[in-house]
Amino acid sequence: MRGGENRAVKLVAMEKHPVVLVGGGPGAWDLITVRGMHALQNADVILADHLGPTAELDKLCDLSAKEVIDCSKLPYGRQVAQEKINAMLVEHAQAGKKVVRLKGGDPFVFGRGFEEIQACAEAGITVEVVPGVTSAISVPAVFGVPVTQRGMVHSFTVISGHVPPGHPTSLNNWEALAQTGGTLVVIMGVKNGGAIASALIDAGRPESTPVAVIQEGTTAAQTGFRTTLGELGASLVSEGVQPPAVIVIGDVAGL
Amino acid sequence: MRGGENRAVKLVAMEKHPVVLVGGGPGAWDLITVRGMHALQNADVILADHLGPTAELDKLCDLSAKEVIDCSKLPYGRQVAQEKINAMLVEHAQAGKKVVRLKGGDPFVFGRGFEEIQACAEAGITVEVVPGVTSAISVPAVFGVPVTQRGMVHSFTVISGHVPPGHPTSLNNWEALAQTGGTLVVIMGVKNGGAIASALIDAGRPESTPVAVIQEGTTAAQTGFRTTLGELGASLVSEGVQPPAVIVIGDVAGL
Repeated sequence: MRGGENRAVKLVAMEKHPVVLVGGGPGAWDLITVRGMHALQNADVILADHLGPTAELDKLCDLSAKEVIDCSKLPYGRQVAQEKINAMLVEHAQAGKKVVRLKGGDPFVFGRGFEEIQACAEAGITVEVVPGVTSAISVPAVFGVPVTQRGMVHSFTVISGHVPPGHPTSLNNWEALAQTGGTLVVIMGVKNGGAIASALIDAGRPESTPVAVIQEGTTAAQTGFRTTLGELGASLVSEGVQPPAVIVIGDVAGL
Repeated sequence: MRGGENRAVKLVAMEKHPVVLVGGGPGAWDLITVRGMHALQNADVILADHLGPTAELDKLCDLSAKEVIDCSKLPYGRQVAQEKINAMLVEHAQAGKKVVRLKGGDPFVFGRGFEEIQACAEAGITVEVVPGVTSAISVPAVFGVPVTQRGMVHSFTVISGHVPPGHPTSLNNWEALAQTGGTLVVIMGVKNGGAIASALIDAGRPESTPVAVIQEGTTAAQTGFRTTLGELGASLVSEGVQPPAVIVIGDVAGL
């Protein structure tokens, strides 16, 4: 049963896998990995999201001989756009191009990365994955908040806040999340931040729990503030927070 | 209250901060960030852990004019070694050296990074933090396991397994962790894996829950296997798993 499974991923050159799924990191151009930069340099076609290092790609590679497609500008709704992205990955790979799919953060942290791999697999196209620095950890770090601290927490949970607590499609048990004893990091939670705070307080997290909110972390536009769980909902409104933002809930936010 | 707080971190050059705390990534030399590589290239002294890209530093920078200190070989117990590391950071910085503290994974994911910053701060020395790719996400990714998948989970929890469930110093609520609805990723959990699986099963996670175990992920020695929560403890023994290893618990491990 044991095996190197996908062990080759780290050793193969791009010609072995026509598509490379690259985590671009939280936003600053130089927070992509060296391997990710090399994949960009080798690419013929780059399908990029609006997050990650997309705005500063020219610092990582010579763009003159590459086609860069800004997937955030596809004239479709989100699901149709995803299907279009999947189709473009397959199409360019089948045309013999070296394709990089560049995503913000890490491709497997709420990034639909596995869906894109599955779409390629259905067309017989293999994909290399290059992990990225996730914004869930790095954005707090650059703001001065460690998601763990010895003697304080032995776990942290990264949560997608795009669906509010109690929503029929929610897959989160907010009562349990309130009680883990660890740090909670909410991404995509600006709109539902108040409802999330209420759910956590109802489930026993103190209103005084420290919270840090960081908007556009690691970019030149980074800004942020500290508040408490009881004040989070009001703070998000009064501070005019806009996505992308990372919300850190727990004692580490008070360090 | 709102402010750019630490905003300068991403803009300053090393002369502004004598110590740079760099996340080296999960093991493969090229999974460090570009910013981390540049910090290594600018360093006079590198204090390195045994994890991360330490064995292949020469691929990232010219070592001939640098002093590299392998902190894993300090002739002390763990806590004394940490105090020695803190002291060396201060000492080299006060001597006018550009110091990089290179850690495996991300410095703030169970990495004692904030303790080192505090030790430097007490000596009046400022520290820049360069986030890294955490093994908790990247090791499963390279093995083929996404920690999130749309429609399957809306959260994942990264847990230090170095203290077993029920231990007086444990800060984890394993009953709550069993019920989050999300993926669980346990690092430093080889020794206590069986006890952790039992605690999760006692708290309601099915024995049939898919599990993936990956040892020395992203390195040439990577190996791994899939099992179930009910079989985890026995599998860790029968497969002879040794640290470092990452254990992924949840439906994503069955994808």
